Amino acid sequence: MPRLVDHRERRETIARALWRVVEQRGVLHLSMREVAQEAGISLGQLQHYFATREAMLSFAMDFMSEQAALRVGQSLAALGDRPHPRDVLRVMLKEMLPLQEDARATSRMSAAFVLEALHNENIHAQAREGIVQGRAGVEQLVRQAIADGYIGTDRDPVAETDLLLALTGFTTLLELDVIEPKAVLAAIDQHLDRLFSEDGQSLG
Amino acid sequence: MPRLVDHRERRETIARALWRVVEQRGVLHLSMREVAQEAGISLGQLQHYFATREAMLSFAMDFMSEQAALRVGQSLAALGDRPHPRDVLRVMLKEMLPLQEDARATSRMSAAFVLEALHNENIHAQAREGIVQGRAGVEQLVRQAIADGYIGTDRDPVAETDLLLALTGFTTLLELDVIEPKAVLAAIDQHLDRLFSEDGQSLG
Repeated sequence: MPRLVDHRERRETIARALWRVVEQRGVLHLSMREVAQEAGISLGQLQHYFATREAMLSFAMDFMSEQAALRVGQSLAALGDRPHPRDVLRVMLKEMLPLQEDARATSRMSAAFVLEALHNENIHAQAREGIVQGRAGVEQLVRQAIADGYIGTDRDPVAETDLLLALTGFTTLLELDVIEPKAVLAAIDQHLDRLFSEDGQSLG
Repeated sequence: MPRLVDHRERRETIARALWRVVEQRGVLHLSMREVAQEAGISLGQLQHYFATREAMLSFAMDFMSEQAALRVGQSLAALGDRPHPRDVLRVMLKEMLPLQEDARATSRMSAAFVLEALHNENIHAQAREGIVQGRAGVEQLVRQAIADGYIGTDRDPVAETDLLLALTGFTTLLELDVIEPKAVLAAIDQHLDRLFSEDGQSLG
């Protein structure tokens, strides 16, 4: 079905143009007109693929999440067959932060979506769902690490999961050049060291 | 000098209108025209007080920081003469998060400023300076707490300060209703308990 493939490809091309507008010129320029211009097509052509600004944003957000999941998957595959849960969490935390170009684009898009979500119910629901799913994955990992003896049984898996997700707060500090990526990684490592410290050896 | 007072008061009235625009309708509506309308004045009158959108934003940001500092000061005063550093940090962390109405407005304004800062050097410098100063205050408090025996001497004051600031990442989780304020406070308390745990009693 070549037409369907073309359609999907064209939508992805438009989503990438949208990311570039957010990345380079800021969320204030996130209009359909600006995205069409960046994608090198007419506004009418853009509207053939996305009837509304919200539909365009919604697709761009899903596509961005897919791409981020692919990058995490590749990094996790590089950890080998039975990776230490500390290493898995470190890969996930690094991907959530604007430490390199792809992740920076994702991070800025996410910030734009959160602001949009405050005044748009559908975007709010979609953004929330993405984070709820991601959070559930981290909590499952933390619970398994407790069960496997990597993390102390005195730890509360819910609070530990929330604290790990809260570390996305490094985003602002990085974007405003308040602290260096090196310092962020050092702080993350201290946090992970402490999380995995007490009963820190595997029972397996 | 009544005229100077009037001028300052009028600028504060405009800044509050700007906050309401951001709070209620979102950062995308943050134009001088929207703010003038919200403040109930003409665009020409607004331009008498702020020549540019950037000047308006810059003042609103400073004024917001002053108001937040006043709120923190009041909460700290309520802690009594020689507050425990854990309680001081808890007050500061709570103020950084959208847990109640005033702080939520501040939080949304901050998010808007950070996005604006990515594409505006002056706003970037101003936003950065504010966070650098806040960070320095937290680091001084952490160092003093280590010196006074409240926090273990094995802790790295720089990394611990960065981790405390990173907890602003709870903002997104709160704004998207991923977790409840109660869970945020529980996680913050766990983090603080652990920070103050090892050599946790004062030498004084």
